[in-house]
Amino acid sequence: MTYRLLIEYEGTDFRGWQIQPNQPTIQEALEKALEVVLKTRPSVVGSGRTDTGVHARGQVAHFRTDHPVDPYRLQRSLNGLLPRSIVVRSLASVDDAFHARYDARSRRYHYYVSTEPRALDRRYRCLVRPVPDFDAMNRAAKALLGEQHFGALCRTRSETENRICTLAQAEWVPETRPGDWFFVVVADRFLHGMVRAIVGTLLEIGRGKRPEDDVARVLATQDRRQAGPAAPAHGLVLEHVLYADGH
Amino acid sequence: MTYRLLIEYEGTDFRGWQIQPNQPTIQEALEKALEVVLKTRPSVVGSGRTDTGVHARGQVAHFRTDHPVDPYRLQRSLNGLLPRSIVVRSLASVDDAFHARYDARSRRYHYYVSTEPRALDRRYRCLVRPVPDFDAMNRAAKALLGEQHFGALCRTRSETENRICTLAQAEWVPETRPGDWFFVVVADRFLHGMVRAIVGTLLEIGRGKRPEDDVARVLATQDRRQAGPAAPAHGLVLEHVLYADGH
Repeated sequence: MTYRLLIEYEGTDFRGWQIQPNQPTIQEALEKALEVVLKTRPSVVGSGRTDTGVHARGQVAHFRTDHPVDPYRLQRSLNGLLPRSIVVRSLASVDDAFHARYDARSRRYHYYVSTEPRALDRRYRCLVRPVPDFDAMNRAAKALLGEQHFGALCRTRSETENRICTLAQAEWVPETRPGDWFFVVVADRFLHGMVRAIVGTLLEIGRGKRPEDDVARVLATQDRRQAGPAAPAHGLVLEHVLYADGH
Repeated sequence: MTYRLLIEYEGTDFRGWQIQPNQPTIQEALEKALEVVLKTRPSVVGSGRTDTGVHARGQVAHFRTDHPVDPYRLQRSLNGLLPRSIVVRSLASVDDAFHARYDARSRRYHYYVSTEPRALDRRYRCLVRPVPDFDAMNRAAKALLGEQHFGALCRTRSETENRICTLAQAEWVPETRPGDWFFVVVADRFLHGMVRAIVGTLLEIGRGKRPEDDVARVLATQDRRQAGPAAPAHGLVLEHVLYADGH
């Protein structure tokens, strides 16, 4: 039996998604909670990793088990066992061929910023000062679209050999509260540290530290040292993973 | 010299606004931070108290001091000294006649709920289950409007003798994310525990535990025991205080 999970989490107190020895991770918290209910510990496979401090509203994962379970009861049990910073939003039985990582067609991340300090949503919104020019950043972000080599905009230690990604959307969107914005980026795949490198580079353009047409030049170098510093992790939220079935 | 502050705070870790012996409060945190800069400790007077666990995006306060200060520099100093759960959004010199409580014309509170558990904004959004009928609650809330005696919808220990309040708005508003709603309530004044008593009573109507026309009956009794239980503090946010000058 294969089950698919939709998961929301606040990453503040976790060392990211992926299990690491002696560190709190989302994956481990889920596997431990499942073990309490199922009596055996399944592997929980996510659509992708999120880094230390990164959040998710729409992470997708699957696990396989020999014991059929009632999805609704299991979801309720898990939400009772998990820390309040992790919520299973839905849990459903799916075809055994389903794979949360291999079947994902695209991912959508939002990077949240504010131009004034915030008290209430400070854990998932990054203060950006001095105030960047959002129009200039949006003009610059157009150069990110399409199929391109993102070697300049990912961690140099990233173990993936294939650095080709196709971006369908990359733009800053104003929110209701003045001073609140988010950067929405949609791609078929993301490399390690890619969104934070993109945001960090755009912010330098928004502050006039780089010319508006610098993104194409940086991408062409395939050299991480040409890009800006990674933006802080806590502004980043994995919002949605899209699968072939449209969910 | 009189200075006016606009303050945002997350109330989770505070025993409310008002100073109490040996308890962390917003008022005390502000006075202590001011004392560091001014070398003397002024009294910080708020537009009103907020209870333990209640938040604010738009609390207004004033303090008086013999030493003129540069408002922008003082604001920056305070934000450096205060815990990250308190932010001074603005600080300005005002007429010495200004009084944050006496001059306030109306207050606006939002009470945030979700019909599914949330991980990211769980600190200021209350889970409501079973899902209430928001349309029914909105029909019922109309009976709150206008000038009325709110003795049935405040803490019995409330020390205020005058229980007459005039409500200009009282309605549930859906948010962008499905399942997220807030109740917006605007009045010239609020009694102790009033918004939480209103929300708790409306939620009972929304779940069919009370008839839709129960609000008028409850108000007429002037008896707190006739109303529903207080809704939890953490869903409540003081959003805005309006003054005669329009700010």
